[in-house]
Amino acid sequence: MKRLLVKLTPKAIGRKIKVCGWINSRRDHGKLIFINLRDRSGILQVVFRLADSNQQLATISQKLRPEWVVCIEGEVKERPKGAENPEVETGKIEIIAEKLEILAMVKKEMPLDLSKKELKMKLSTLLKERVLTLRHEKSRAIFRVFETVLGAYRKVMKKLDFVEIKTPKIIGTASEGGANFFTFDYFGKKAFLAQSPQFYKQIGVGMFERVFEIGPVFRKEPHFTTRHLNEYISLDAEMGFIENFNEIMDELEKVIKFILKSIWKENKKDLKLFSAEPPKIPKRIPRIKLREIRKIIKEKYQYEIPEDSDIDPKGEELAGKWAREKWKSDLVFLTHYPKSCRPFYTMPDKENPEETLSFDLLFKGVEIATGSQRIHKAEELIKNIKEFKLDPKDFKFYIDTFKYGMPPHGGWALGCERIVYKILNLPTIKEATLFPRDVKRLVP
Amino acid sequence: MKRLLVKLTPKAIGRKIKVCGWINSRRDHGKLIFINLRDRSGILQVVFRLADSNQQLATISQKLRPEWVVCIEGEVKERPKGAENPEVETGKIEIIAEKLEILAMVKKEMPLDLSKKELKMKLSTLLKERVLTLRHEKSRAIFRVFETVLGAYRKVMKKLDFVEIKTPKIIGTASEGGANFFTFDYFGKKAFLAQSPQFYKQIGVGMFERVFEIGPVFRKEPHFTTRHLNEYISLDAEMGFIENFNEIMDELEKVIKFILKSIWKENKKDLKLFSAEPPKIPKRIPRIKLREIRKIIKEKYQYEIPEDSDIDPKGEELAGKWAREKWKSDLVFLTHYPKSCRPFYTMPDKENPEETLSFDLLFKGVEIATGSQRIHKAEELIKNIKEFKLDPKDFKFYIDTFKYGMPPHGGWALGCERIVYKILNLPTIKEATLFPRDVKRLVP
Repeated sequence: MKRLLVKLTPKAIGRKIKVCGWINSRRDHGKLIFINLRDRSGILQVVFRLADSNQQLATISQKLRPEWVVCIEGEVKERPKGAENPEVETGKIEIIAEKLEILAMVKKEMPLDLSKKELKMKLSTLLKERVLTLRHEKSRAIFRVFETVLGAYRKVMKKLDFVEIKTPKIIGTASEGGANFFTFDYFGKKAFLAQSPQFYKQIGVGMFERVFEIGPVFRKEPHFTTRHLNEYISLDAEMGFIENFNEIMDELEKVIKFILKSIWKENKKDLKLFSAEPPKIPKRIPRIKLREIRKIIKEKYQYEIPEDSDIDPKGEELAGKWAREKWKSDLVFLTHYPKSCRPFYTMPDKENPEETLSFDLLFKGVEIATGSQRIHKAEELIKNIKEFKLDPKDFKFYIDTFKYGMPPHGGWALGCERIVYKILNLPTIKEATLFPRDVKRLVP
Repeated sequence: MKRLLVKLTPKAIGRKIKVCGWINSRRDHGKLIFINLRDRSGILQVVFRLADSNQQLATISQKLRPEWVVCIEGEVKERPKGAENPEVETGKIEIIAEKLEILAMVKKEMPLDLSKKELKMKLSTLLKERVLTLRHEKSRAIFRVFETVLGAYRKVMKKLDFVEIKTPKIIGTASEGGANFFTFDYFGKKAFLAQSPQFYKQIGVGMFERVFEIGPVFRKEPHFTTRHLNEYISLDAEMGFIENFNEIMDELEKVIKFILKSIWKENKKDLKLFSAEPPKIPKRIPRIKLREIRKIIKEKYQYEIPEDSDIDPKGEELAGKWAREKWKSDLVFLTHYPKSCRPFYTMPDKENPEETLSFDLLFKGVEIATGSQRIHKAEELIKNIKEFKLDPKDFKFYIDTFKYGMPPHGGWALGCERIVYKILNLPTIKEATLFPRDVKRLVP
């Protein structure tokens, strides 16, 4: 008999069917065993009536334990009045088991109960037992939202006429010139793990004008925060022939709105598990200069952002608070970051060369994207590389790109995990990645 | 004035418009300068009439050179009879330049002429000058096909009810137990670059039953061939609750057919540039045991595949030839590879334990995918790890996955660049990747 997915069983009342999945939980009630069977589509109650069963079925069914993998055949029946469970979609039916096949048993003590609504575990245990905790309903919900972000990004970027590219993650030049790169030996040469597809997506502008990439980036930063990862998925974009740097934010604005809308359309059940409220988004996402928001934060909240920082996490949090109070917006662009805080390829603002044509996008007080217009003339780029005390020789092919003619352009990098983390109000971004990499975590 | 994309200009006859792009070529004809302007959407002829122009326009327009980036305003006119160019979509019109803005000039001698139909360069030069050669029409065509493969894979996988996941590329365990890993220091621990998402996609089966991933993989293999890369995009999949290993090939068959169909639908112009013929695909892709094809190759083509190899490139080529002759198919599954040639997690064939439930998919005589059913019981897995002279301790979290109950499952890895390479009959797979990584190439 062919397997039927659990979500289709309510339409099979009276029919004999076969379902396969994991034992999510087991409950005994006299001569009855109730099993909640979990497959990729839902959860279904299976009843073993020991008194009516043949000896063999009665014997094996009593052995069943959580996470055993089974196939069960039986008839779909409506549940007796009063025994319905409105919380699951199959709550009005159950199947009466007639046949049981065990595909796999559990061979290790279960360190947790996946059938509980909340796992309530310490983060370290949650991540250590990842191969199991990921099976929990709430974990799966997180990664269904994650998938929606990936799909929505692609969809909206294609709609906006961007071409998807894939650029190398093994690179020979440190793109930001910084120290936070993982390095290794590549057939006798020193290689770096790409911290961003920056150089390559800019080259892509020369091909297609508008390009985007979805891929991993790697940061050797010894963070111990709830919002950093050493490897994450960056949603990158770069666009040519811009007339001013506001156009970059205009496009990103469409993108983030589309992503959020998609999640609220496609992940209703998942959002409910986290009691996630729809974000406040005004018609136009407010844009405010960094130096202005610093002033406001000082005046309004008596908090002074340290001098040597563009904006610190506390500052971002308060900027988010201000955006909610002033503009009723969970999203806000902070613009015109100082030159000293941005990479060498960032376009300086002609009106104030100490500032750059750059921005961060904050969502609920956390940076989820960063972007800027880039320098597109080789001679200006070389000048800036030198000002940053870097050696133009290390950036030869990158500089060549601009010697061969490049239009004004800019782009952004949007953090996939950051979006999921903030939407679901997770305690840490580490829960928004399947197998987080941080200073202490390389396994699993 | 707002810029109009070149592809939209044929509908603007009689209107004044603005176009922006690169100078693809320039041709002088007495007091006329003909420019082919290239933007992301096409190529358009722009005419500078020096005799009718103001002095300034006449002076600057004479300086224009290939790859300069410009915006031009002027009126769209039908070309004089006999001056049409049927080869381009805008071949019946031209614009008469009235205004010219130079966005960027070229500041380096152009090492090649992008307006030629064929670049006809040595591979080493083509790749060295990548930031420029990628702008050529044929290069762009390759990566439009590449994009279609990415998009089609995603689309068909979603249709087949797979969930997209992203797994770490920095890992702490060598997944195949082999030596071909790039290794590096990760905050004091030894880390590897993932050679495949194997372990993680299998864990994903425990979450969603069916998962897929599109991401880079890394191989420290000192190849000098036309079909290997040290970094490439792997289209991975893993599916649970299979009843037999043929189901994996059934799904992959749908996937590859959908990808090919999509390309022949969406990339007609690109395919034409390469004179690419539609592949021969029978209703069902033939499946033949490796040991049988070895026999056939020996009998039919007098070629003996070396004893210590499962199948060598020459063997694959001849297997492809056989598939075309015998089944009129450009695709063929070779199945049941010997145990010694497959990773330790591959399910042995119960009927002949020296063979495995594994397959490769050949396309025009080149392997484009590899897959198998996996061992899903912890005790069998441990036994096999030991047989492969590996230490189960190194695979603890992976083995735990199976101790917690896993259904029969299997999957594949499909090489994105391999598909593009064979579809377009490129001389080497290196042309099917933006910035190829091989033993000698780390830059650009």
